[in-house]
Amino acid sequence: MEAALRQAYEAFGETQAERGVDLGAVEERLRAQRVETPSWGYGNSGTRFAVFPQPGVPRNPFEKLQDAAQVHAHTGICPSVALHIPWDRVEDYRELADYAASLGLRLGAINPNLFQDEEYRLGSVCNPDPAVRRRATDHLLECVEIAGEVKSRVLSLWLADGTNYPGQDSFVERRGRMLECLSEVYGRMPEDMRLLLEYKLFEPAFYHTDLCDWGTALTMCQKLGERALVLVDLGHHAQGVNVEHIVSLLLDEGRLGGFHFNNRKYADDDLIVGSVNPFELFLIYVELLEAEENPGVRIEYMIDQAHNIEPKIEAMILSVMNLQEAYAKALLVDREALREARRSGDVLSAHRVLLDAYSADVRPLCAKLREDLGGSADPVAAFRASGYLERVAEERREGRPAGWG
Amino acid sequence: MEAALRQAYEAFGETQAERGVDLGAVEERLRAQRVETPSWGYGNSGTRFAVFPQPGVPRNPFEKLQDAAQVHAHTGICPSVALHIPWDRVEDYRELADYAASLGLRLGAINPNLFQDEEYRLGSVCNPDPAVRRRATDHLLECVEIAGEVKSRVLSLWLADGTNYPGQDSFVERRGRMLECLSEVYGRMPEDMRLLLEYKLFEPAFYHTDLCDWGTALTMCQKLGERALVLVDLGHHAQGVNVEHIVSLLLDEGRLGGFHFNNRKYADDDLIVGSVNPFELFLIYVELLEAEENPGVRIEYMIDQAHNIEPKIEAMILSVMNLQEAYAKALLVDREALREARRSGDVLSAHRVLLDAYSADVRPLCAKLREDLGGSADPVAAFRASGYLERVAEERREGRPAGWG
Amino acid sequence: MEAALRQAYEAFGETQAERGVDLGAVEERLRAQRVETPSWGYGNSGTRFAVFPQPGVPRNPFEKLQDAAQVHAHTGICPSVALHIPWDRVEDYRELADYAASLGLRLGAINPNLFQDEEYRLGSVCNPDPAVRRRATDHLLECVEIAGEVKSRVLSLWLADGTNYPGQDSFVERRGRMLECLSEVYGRMPEDMRLLLEYKLFEPAFYHTDLCDWGTALTMCQKLGERALVLVDLGHHAQGVNVEHIVSLLLDEGRLGGFHFNNRKYADDDLIVGSVNPFELFLIYVELLEAEENPGVRIEYMIDQAHNIEPKIEAMILSVMNLQEAYAKALLVDREALREARRSGDVLSAHRVLLDAYSADVRPLCAKLREDLGGSADPVAAFRASGYLERVAEERREGRPAGWG
Amino acid sequence: MEAALRQAYEAFGETQAERGVDLGAVEERLRAQRVETPSWGYGNSGTRFAVFPQPGVPRNPFEKLQDAAQVHAHTGICPSVALHIPWDRVEDYRELADYAASLGLRLGAINPNLFQDEEYRLGSVCNPDPAVRRRATDHLLECVEIAGEVKSRVLSLWLADGTNYPGQDSFVERRGRMLECLSEVYGRMPEDMRLLLEYKLFEPAFYHTDLCDWGTALTMCQKLGERALVLVDLGHHAQGVNVEHIVSLLLDEGRLGGFHFNNRKYADDDLIVGSVNPFELFLIYVELLEAEENPGVRIEYMIDQAHNIEPKIEAMILSVMNLQEAYAKALLVDREALREARRSGDVLSAHRVLLDAYSADVRPLCAKLREDLGGSADPVAAFRASGYLERVAEERREGRPAGWG
Repeated sequence: MEAALRQAYEAFGETQAERGVDLGAVEERLRAQRVETPSWGYGNSGTRFAVFPQPGVPRNPFEKLQDAAQVHAHTGICPSVALHIPWDRVEDYRELADYAASLGLRLGAINPNLFQDEEYRLGSVCNPDPAVRRRATDHLLECVEIAGEVKSRVLSLWLADGTNYPGQDSFVERRGRMLECLSEVYGRMPEDMRLLLEYKLFEPAFYHTDLCDWGTALTMCQKLGERALVLVDLGHHAQGVNVEHIVSLLLDEGRLGGFHFNNRKYADDDLIVGSVNPFELFLIYVELLEAEENPGVRIEYMIDQAHNIEPKIEAMILSVMNLQEAYAKALLVDREALREARRSGDVLSAHRVLLDAYSADVRPLCAKLREDLGGSADPVAAFRASGYLERVAEERREGRPAGWG
Repeated sequence: MEAALRQAYEAFGETQAERGVDLGAVEERLRAQRVETPSWGYGNSGTRFAVFPQPGVPRNPFEKLQDAAQVHAHTGICPSVALHIPWDRVEDYRELADYAASLGLRLGAINPNLFQDEEYRLGSVCNPDPAVRRRATDHLLECVEIAGEVKSRVLSLWLADGTNYPGQDSFVERRGRMLECLSEVYGRMPEDMRLLLEYKLFEPAFYHTDLCDWGTALTMCQKLGERALVLVDLGHHAQGVNVEHIVSLLLDEGRLGGFHFNNRKYADDDLIVGSVNPFELFLIYVELLEAEENPGVRIEYMIDQAHNIEPKIEAMILSVMNLQEAYAKALLVDREALREARRSGDVLSAHRVLLDAYSADVRPLCAKLREDLGGSADPVAAFRASGYLERVAEERREGRPAGWG
Repeated sequence: MEAALRQAYEAFGETQAERGVDLGAVEERLRAQRVETPSWGYGNSGTRFAVFPQPGVPRNPFEKLQDAAQVHAHTGICPSVALHIPWDRVEDYRELADYAASLGLRLGAINPNLFQDEEYRLGSVCNPDPAVRRRATDHLLECVEIAGEVKSRVLSLWLADGTNYPGQDSFVERRGRMLECLSEVYGRMPEDMRLLLEYKLFEPAFYHTDLCDWGTALTMCQKLGERALVLVDLGHHAQGVNVEHIVSLLLDEGRLGGFHFNNRKYADDDLIVGSVNPFELFLIYVELLEAEENPGVRIEYMIDQAHNIEPKIEAMILSVMNLQEAYAKALLVDREALREARRSGDVLSAHRVLLDAYSADVRPLCAKLREDLGGSADPVAAFRASGYLERVAEERREGRPAGWG
Repeated sequence: MEAALRQAYEAFGETQAERGVDLGAVEERLRAQRVETPSWGYGNSGTRFAVFPQPGVPRNPFEKLQDAAQVHAHTGICPSVALHIPWDRVEDYRELADYAASLGLRLGAINPNLFQDEEYRLGSVCNPDPAVRRRATDHLLECVEIAGEVKSRVLSLWLADGTNYPGQDSFVERRGRMLECLSEVYGRMPEDMRLLLEYKLFEPAFYHTDLCDWGTALTMCQKLGERALVLVDLGHHAQGVNVEHIVSLLLDEGRLGGFHFNNRKYADDDLIVGSVNPFELFLIYVELLEAEENPGVRIEYMIDQAHNIEPKIEAMILSVMNLQEAYAKALLVDREALREARRSGDVLSAHRVLLDAYSADVRPLCAKLREDLGGSADPVAAFRASGYLERVAEERREGRPAGWG
């Protein structure tokens, strides 16, 4: 640790000690934080208007793992990588898992793709055509198998199903079709596998989306079974919706399965988590802290972003740093003072308890933590200095860079 | 029926006959349509910035019933009136019920008020203070009793509970408190009484609202019991939310209990239903039609509006007309053609089946219907011509006009 | 005209005559209505998640004109076609214009593309790199020349410029760069050419968009000169924004240059105009009617939609029908009654004047009009019956269908 | 200064010195920061559903000044108080100004009220009735006079004018009426007086608002003259609108006149500034910093909040602290590094320059500043400890507490 950092860390520690914070306990929690990065976050992405290719983008799942390993190396808390099928389809999944292990990684959630094939024009598991539903269900079953092969225990499902015009299809019949398909899949999942069901307000469907909010996802999970849980993507809500409230509701229902972290100002913008409203991110972690202490709770923390104009590996590293800082600040909340202020109906004091934690500068703490974990005090700078991107940009000049498709 | 109307009605009938519509069946459904008007819709209302008093506003519940009787007289489908306690508190509820009967009306849903007393500054059934929760629960129990006295079988509950600042209170603890209070009330309801639970995105709470969307209301109802059902107010959603989809979801869950009709462009604007997006209103009725045919389904159709700048009785009459026209158009939908277009994945044709019904001019049909029911072909004009408002404006000059409070 | 249509038309005429409407004058306005369809609306389109190819999609600008000619043939009011450069780049623009003329069409607005090239990752005319701005300006100048060659007098410019992250660039400096580039282009436009400047809330930029609302576009036009005018795309506003109000403001400023018609429920959904909120479309035309009567006013009415899942030519035809019906209803508004109700502060009556026109079933009128113009009473059915799509689907099997890019 | 604070301040200073920050210059700017508090923020307020009275609320303008003096005493940067006419109407305005001076205060912006009288049901300066417009204009002229008497040089005007229903009135005619009235007022303002024109998306008008966005306010100011400027209220925008961008646009047009600070999650929630999205507040100050250095620029920084459930004076103090911290963080931005990152198109680095400033814990700096200015290191705690509220609650038990009306 450099002298300046050490000094800042020590000053931070003193301040927190005065506040009565057990810094050791905070650091233990921080060390245990885990964030899964998505294989597709390392490939090219864009909007419907353009995809701007970047240098050094991986050409296959193995190279995506190499990039993910960089993020883990510099941050220390990202040992797993989510896969997307078919974008990450390989001949031999064991080989891929072994390669991940050789990089210090493991394979995480398996993400099926039910939105890209021509057959899915009118939906996948909700499609009026039973043959298309069969195809969709078979793809999900394939993903269950792949999960088994790579020892992943999470099927993470986003359905693009919906309609574009009033009258186009029956809301209720589509719901019934979805339930039938997912029930078959759920029934074939091994007992230690969990199904995470994601909802989204709109896009690509523009009139109605079959799983449009947490209520639609939750009621579907209720019908499927205990290992069906809801996945919250921070960019999938209507404007104004209080996401931390939804998080608490799903926790209270015992149905919060995981997160897709990102940020947005408008719609599903898929920006770097914490770049638009870092206070909201902090408030979400405040809800999670107590719940995490319950032994039964297991939540998958995953990033799902599209780095369209900024360098992808650096953006992923910054995202992880933002998650570390938000978590660290949430750990500084004086919970006893919070309880007391709430009990006495002291609105302003309760609010200030949160502000007090949020206003802290936790960068020295997080930097120290990352060094403890073998990562970097300033991971973006360290990654830039490493020359990795220049090297792979050279190595990967030939061939077709990975993207969505 | 005037000649011009008769001619228009007959032309309409011919056109529909060519489309294969059974006009008799349509008229039977239309005759059975019922809309409950709210006692508070006849009193003065406004925004936080101003309440503009109107001439002739009723001074007590009896006079509100007189006004409601006018709406029923001219439209023929509004025989019941929702009460708000304490705004409609009287010494003798039997007397009020008898007076309603004398006007050809009956008393409908009982609406408790848990937002106006000073004690509710931090919430009612979710308040951190158990004494306040006790008070709130007692008020609900009082309303159950009043409902019994006036032979109403519906308790219609909107909770303003929420917080204004991050950290102010615990989402989960508040939820637990609400469940406890409502369980007590539910347990005391007679077996034929139903609890309708309303949700709302925001206002008066500006950070989180305890029942903020259909999911929060539904999961609470699931915990309470079968006679707890969700009430949809058309102005209580985030922008962009597909309300007809929510209606279908609640129907599919067997938990749609009723509506508060109104319209909005921005937030809970409480405008005349159908005045901003009449197509949405039509689409909602399209969802309801089939469900209504199920014998178990019973939905309370209620108006909840604030006529701040327009004359209240006329505005209520126009609202009912808009509901009649939306329902009539929905009844014209060629359901068989719709099913066929959906089955074959013909997006445009399915959409056009709805447009085809929506584009019809159903005013002659509705006018004829109203006349059949003893109402008026042009109810707003007939009401204006009746001189009622001028008469009551004179009669009610003294005393304090009713309002919110 | 078929007997049933004739009967319906006559009944409509009688009803309107009773209302005091001069049907001849209405029909004259309707006959003069013009809608420009976009060449890119006939090519494949989609979302960032998928493009679902359709059979028979044109492979080049000439075939797009063939499809556009179908829309004109069946509706009678779409004689011009907007071009997009480079998607419609050809060797010889005179040849393209001649081909259009041979189909009874002419070439309309020229739409530059400043969003697709790799160089535009950080913007085009706002890019921090002067070389990129030069490139963008040169492309605009090229489009001015093309417009000259095809005798188009409209340059229709949408800028995707914006940023994705706070801090990424200087709002003010970007504005200065835009002004400099556009001033050069404006200065090179022939005196009878007009620049239409389009604004959009977001997408593809997710933090800020340089021309994000009508105010940003208008103030830029004020700086450029009198022939710089604002283009309103119905899907480019924040939720809740009153578009008809903006239309009236731009008319009052003398700066409304044109429309991109479409509809949306969420963001820039590019759905069929009138499919989500037909009442809003009617209200927009109500604003336009009086303004159109001013001899100095010239507004370009253009469609800009993406028919991702529905057949493109049919969808375009339905869009034009919806525009005809909205215009027809607006023409039925009793303006004198409206003025009188407004003057006397009779809110409900003024509102009902609009409802009265909107509730009319104008389909017989529009069908008759289309027949007068050589089109079809039921254009979608007539197009389907014509076998055109099947024929071109066969003819265009080889080669690469046109799309965005 | 207490030892712990001194230590924290010194540690902060060292860290900033390492970053190359000239702390003296930062403190000079911070010392010059001024925030005007609103007289009405000390009176009772609420929503349309309830106003919850608080103990100790002032009963007249003199007592409001006493409360405002408390905020200034503890924060050091709030020497002026905005008045609202007629809520602050007094016999002798010189006396009120003298009383303010005796408390170390001065009277600030004069805020007319054109929304509360019965006559304004259909608008004030846009009302179709010329007599109402005359009344409204006369009230504005009265406020110009009052401003003269109290030596205020700012007329701060919010117009509630708008309509609730499509068709209710003519957008364009209303605009003309507003221009006529405001022109008369502008013409009567002394040469050193400025008119600040506020816009708002909606509420109390629910269909259209005459000044609904910055474009409507700006174009009106352009017509009025150079001393007509736009006032930005942070809660008056549609969801998603980028407020810092608007701030920069108005600065670039030379028309940013002032702020009404507050925060919102949904609509015009009027919460404590910085309580929902503190990062946005920081970004707004980033835009302001450079502009403030321009000698011609003068911006009024005012708070406009409604403390419905939290104690009003404490809430005002916390608001000022949040503004101090946001400003302080903005002053820490490494502008040279920002320029360099932007110049080279380094998106991530430019963004990180802002994050780097925002992440700092500026509380020791602000605490020290406040002490320098004679205020309190922890102003909320100091105010609580002072016993002021208990004292005035006792003194002000009799009489009618001030509120909106």
